[in-house]
Amino acid sequence: MNFLSDNAYGAAPQMLEALAAANGGVAAPYGADPITERLRAEMARVFERDVGVFPVATGTAANALALATLVPQHGAIFCHRDAHISVDECGAPEFFTHGAKMVTLGGAHAKLTADRLEDAVTPFQKGIVHHAQPAAVSLTQATELGTCYRPEEIAALAATARKHGMKVHLDGARFANAVAHLGCTPAELTWRAGVDALSFGATKNGAFGAEAVVFFNAADARDFEYRRKKAGHLVSKMRFVSAQLLASLEDRRWLRWAGRANAQAARLARTLEDSGAEIAHPVESNAIFVSFPDAVVAKLRAGGAHFYDWGTPTHGRTLVRLVVSFATPDDNIDRFIALVRR
Amino acid sequence: MNFLSDNAYGAAPQMLEALAAANGGVAAPYGADPITERLRAEMARVFERDVGVFPVATGTAANALALATLVPQHGAIFCHRDAHISVDECGAPEFFTHGAKMVTLGGAHAKLTADRLEDAVTPFQKGIVHHAQPAAVSLTQATELGTCYRPEEIAALAATARKHGMKVHLDGARFANAVAHLGCTPAELTWRAGVDALSFGATKNGAFGAEAVVFFNAADARDFEYRRKKAGHLVSKMRFVSAQLLASLEDRRWLRWAGRANAQAARLARTLEDSGAEIAHPVESNAIFVSFPDAVVAKLRAGGAHFYDWGTPTHGRTLVRLVVSFATPDDNIDRFIALVRR
Amino acid sequence: MNFLSDNAYGAAPQMLEALAAANGGVAAPYGADPITERLRAEMARVFERDVGVFPVATGTAANALALATLVPQHGAIFCHRDAHISVDECGAPEFFTHGAKMVTLGGAHAKLTADRLEDAVTPFQKGIVHHAQPAAVSLTQATELGTCYRPEEIAALAATARKHGMKVHLDGARFANAVAHLGCTPAELTWRAGVDALSFGATKNGAFGAEAVVFFNAADARDFEYRRKKAGHLVSKMRFVSAQLLASLEDRRWLRWAGRANAQAARLARTLEDSGAEIAHPVESNAIFVSFPDAVVAKLRAGGAHFYDWGTPTHGRTLVRLVVSFATPDDNIDRFIALVRR
Amino acid sequence: MNFLSDNAYGAAPQMLEALAAANGGVAAPYGADPITERLRAEMARVFERDVGVFPVATGTAANALALATLVPQHGAIFCHRDAHISVDECGAPEFFTHGAKMVTLGGAHAKLTADRLEDAVTPFQKGIVHHAQPAAVSLTQATELGTCYRPEEIAALAATARKHGMKVHLDGARFANAVAHLGCTPAELTWRAGVDALSFGATKNGAFGAEAVVFFNAADARDFEYRRKKAGHLVSKMRFVSAQLLASLEDRRWLRWAGRANAQAARLARTLEDSGAEIAHPVESNAIFVSFPDAVVAKLRAGGAHFYDWGTPTHGRTLVRLVVSFATPDDNIDRFIALVRR
Repeated sequence: MNFLSDNAYGAAPQMLEALAAANGGVAAPYGADPITERLRAEMARVFERDVGVFPVATGTAANALALATLVPQHGAIFCHRDAHISVDECGAPEFFTHGAKMVTLGGAHAKLTADRLEDAVTPFQKGIVHHAQPAAVSLTQATELGTCYRPEEIAALAATARKHGMKVHLDGARFANAVAHLGCTPAELTWRAGVDALSFGATKNGAFGAEAVVFFNAADARDFEYRRKKAGHLVSKMRFVSAQLLASLEDRRWLRWAGRANAQAARLARTLEDSGAEIAHPVESNAIFVSFPDAVVAKLRAGGAHFYDWGTPTHGRTLVRLVVSFATPDDNIDRFIALVRR
Repeated sequence: MNFLSDNAYGAAPQMLEALAAANGGVAAPYGADPITERLRAEMARVFERDVGVFPVATGTAANALALATLVPQHGAIFCHRDAHISVDECGAPEFFTHGAKMVTLGGAHAKLTADRLEDAVTPFQKGIVHHAQPAAVSLTQATELGTCYRPEEIAALAATARKHGMKVHLDGARFANAVAHLGCTPAELTWRAGVDALSFGATKNGAFGAEAVVFFNAADARDFEYRRKKAGHLVSKMRFVSAQLLASLEDRRWLRWAGRANAQAARLARTLEDSGAEIAHPVESNAIFVSFPDAVVAKLRAGGAHFYDWGTPTHGRTLVRLVVSFATPDDNIDRFIALVRR
Repeated sequence: MNFLSDNAYGAAPQMLEALAAANGGVAAPYGADPITERLRAEMARVFERDVGVFPVATGTAANALALATLVPQHGAIFCHRDAHISVDECGAPEFFTHGAKMVTLGGAHAKLTADRLEDAVTPFQKGIVHHAQPAAVSLTQATELGTCYRPEEIAALAATARKHGMKVHLDGARFANAVAHLGCTPAELTWRAGVDALSFGATKNGAFGAEAVVFFNAADARDFEYRRKKAGHLVSKMRFVSAQLLASLEDRRWLRWAGRANAQAARLARTLEDSGAEIAHPVESNAIFVSFPDAVVAKLRAGGAHFYDWGTPTHGRTLVRLVVSFATPDDNIDRFIALVRR
Repeated sequence: MNFLSDNAYGAAPQMLEALAAANGGVAAPYGADPITERLRAEMARVFERDVGVFPVATGTAANALALATLVPQHGAIFCHRDAHISVDECGAPEFFTHGAKMVTLGGAHAKLTADRLEDAVTPFQKGIVHHAQPAAVSLTQATELGTCYRPEEIAALAATARKHGMKVHLDGARFANAVAHLGCTPAELTWRAGVDALSFGATKNGAFGAEAVVFFNAADARDFEYRRKKAGHLVSKMRFVSAQLLASLEDRRWLRWAGRANAQAARLARTLEDSGAEIAHPVESNAIFVSFPDAVVAKLRAGGAHFYDWGTPTHGRTLVRLVVSFATPDDNIDRFIALVRR
């Protein structure tokens, strides 16, 4: 019973098939192949407009390269204090941007609000060289606490960003889970709401290792390809990364897989709640943050469940994170529930 | 009546004399001259131990180069959220360190405490590559709000830093004011309390433009000279920067000048307080943060006083900053007091 | 008939099998999995000593991260002027090292010699801060022109490097071809000859996308893991990268595949030479540089052969590069020969 | 008799006077003062057009900041292999540009030619992400070997640069010497010939420490101020740097001082030549490169002359560099001549 992370699971069988299918014969390297071309077309279809699509191997690369393309060296990037780009990437955005400033904000359930953003940006003095200049806001969708931004929330944040001349980046390592949960179109959650660039994640959702930076305005992407190459993120046999992304999009697999994980998480959350556990954040994707008495936590681990503590246990209770993946067996959910109830 | 900043004033006459005296004949460039040699000896005397002394032209250079020398690319630097290095240097530390992470903390009167530092550092997971690694704490002495750290406060912070394997940097743009106020020795406020590197400022205290990075352990300074050169901060005719620093140290001018500014600030603050103004932070150096009714602020400005608002006026009152410099005429203090009382 | 590059071919069937085998169930991410553990053991066996092994997705990442780990910001990196790190990585080493200086040297057949290195390093003034400091030499094995360094050549270069306090890096994108050609052990071509770090390539030799940085001294690798993460090169589902590397090493496949490509290249080269074509560089791996009359080049392309011109055609002749891959069909060689002879 | 470098001498008395005159009362910091304003006007007059003028403290800062403003991260900068930016700045351009590639070319007497530039740029494949993209050429005027570019030579180089979409930077640490020697206007040697940005040096020509980046097109300077601040090169009491530059320009002092040094150098060179010494490069500014028998070199040094060897003595002769400064006493020239003749 592994609820540690969605990256603990391997890849979907369709990914292996996609690699096998892509593996016949020769193809131009570095993205000049037909599969990458098909990926671009498919992404344009999914997002209902022309988009720039740039496959890379990791989410950190997608985020940091996207931000470095949008933000000047002297820019400031606003994000939630729990954001992966701030907490879990060892300072990759600062590295790729050559020293842009990260400004972290609070906000319930790991979500920024337009008001908070406005309050944080306003004190920055525009055009005064002593201060980093507001340049971008980065939102995580779904968030690090498993919650989702509604289109109108993104639109309000984007409007605030626009007002201050800032770009909007979406860290979509779990974008599929958000789309599946909200039932919106990908367009509604991105460019229609004002998003400029998206880190589109497939790795946590069934791929071996495949992400893509998606730019919604060609002008923004101008330098991206040079940055990707210079940072060592231009994969030579790119068709195999593109094939994974394509396999994900085809037949709406990305949404079906994410939807399944979401549904399992929702079922698990409801049962836990019924059992008296305290759910800390709305369960709007494939992660559950739940507080158990320490004894229950011990019992669960003794019973074979693997998951992370989230923060330090206090007052006899521990907040834990349970992540359901695209491949978590139903049986694992059932066994976990049984353990809790025992 | 200029209370905008201590850098609004020019240089002390002794600085001109020092430049004139240093200007005879030829000298080896880049710090291999006898004046720089004398500066090193004088700094060693002032700090009661061998020190590495590296003159530069600006405080931002001193801070950022010192931090880049102490902190790896993947390090985290802890400082107060009001710290000059975080707010007023356009991201220089991130630039020079190639992307180290700045972590900003709160604390009354712009001072960090050992407890807050401990709380902030503890959650960082040591040795886990996803997270920036605690590498240094930077304190401003005197602080951006005109307060001073006592030796025992620095020692407690340094002990916390040490415990976590972190270095201690002191931004001493107004170090002279702190030493003059506290009546401690420079040694007590630096290496004896656990400080590894000091940005020693002279520009705000009578020089044309002269700062020095002082390292208290030779091992820490190893790469500094290359970093200084590579960043364009190795001045060719260094004797003229060194001469300013030396003129500052000789005859204890730095402490007399700073002491005079402190005393004027203290006198002004007492009078303001007696007049019913609200002093927002203990006046422990040459800056006063005082809240006036908006009408008083308007009256002061109409009367010819120049100063900055500190934040946005609220509820009919404005917090303003008054900085007294080494060269502020006594008469300016008197006139300002008269204006307030009018 | 694709002779454009070894990355034009897909992956060996054994790579697919390895991915499939690695794909059962859950595994710890980021390299804490049993397959990566096995890879480390296998690499230690192959190199006959403990080694640090760090999988990444691209050769540029391997090279630039290795160099940034070995070389300080103020260092100089010496390499051949045809070196991939200088010509084909869009300045990745300068980016990752935060501005180290690349110094490019000549040398017949894309090989450096100890004498040339000595001549190039000697003028650098050691300890003088105005000048970048000699810090590493990077050799490509097999070289960009298909030639190989003998162990004694590497040893001589490494001795020169050592004498000047420099580290030795090997860009081994085609290391397998070199080992197969020379019939030496991997140890003889690396640490026994004085190499400190190796970029071990598998992508050009049958993998989907898998490289590894191999450090021969633990001390050198100290910061590597942070750099890899900060640069977005820490793959989450690393078992799948490690599985490819392992599949490559097992059953000596890497050497058999490379050896086959080498043999085909040798056969092709001999035939071309017999047909009167001019072979420009010794054929010591899987690449042939051959000069044809322009009419022959046109005929070959009309006949369906794909390859790159190498430089600009002159005097009615064109130098072209023919790369044979691990998967080039024998029949392609035969057809190409037939075309030439027609 | 110090002929080591023009930075061995101190400052002209007029510089002290300028500092003294600038030192009355208060002034806005960071360049918002009236003296910096006057400097801008004076520079516009000198260059016969609106220019952006940005004082900094060192030539390395001027060069590296100018280049980083003109050149993207993935750009290539072409310069002569003797260029200060390549040899003597410890990799500052690579650092400030975040990894742009330096491409060094040969050329007689430290001068690039349009043909050589064309040959060097042509092989770079435009728009191919694997390769750094030609972005700027940097010329030194006067060169490191004391020679000067004629306006038509600069124009030819600039035309080649333009053709390839590159910017043109002039390292003018000794620009005054070149203008004085050539008798052209500053405009003819810069923007009229196609120069985009100039590092205007005053330090080697009588100042304590004052340089300025001059941009001839406002669009090019857009980010410069942020870069200057972020790199710690925004001097707070800027009026004192500006005052030096202004004192240099006023009364055509910069040209008179440089002209005097040039004339002394020319006189010395003629005499040396008459005495049978070999002058290695045309003497077109204030530096002489002359080859003496080793015995003569020893005699000169024994007689109290200081100068640098240029390269390693060979075949019983040593090439030495003699630099005459704005302040070298006539008597030193005479004594040196006497020593040679003795």
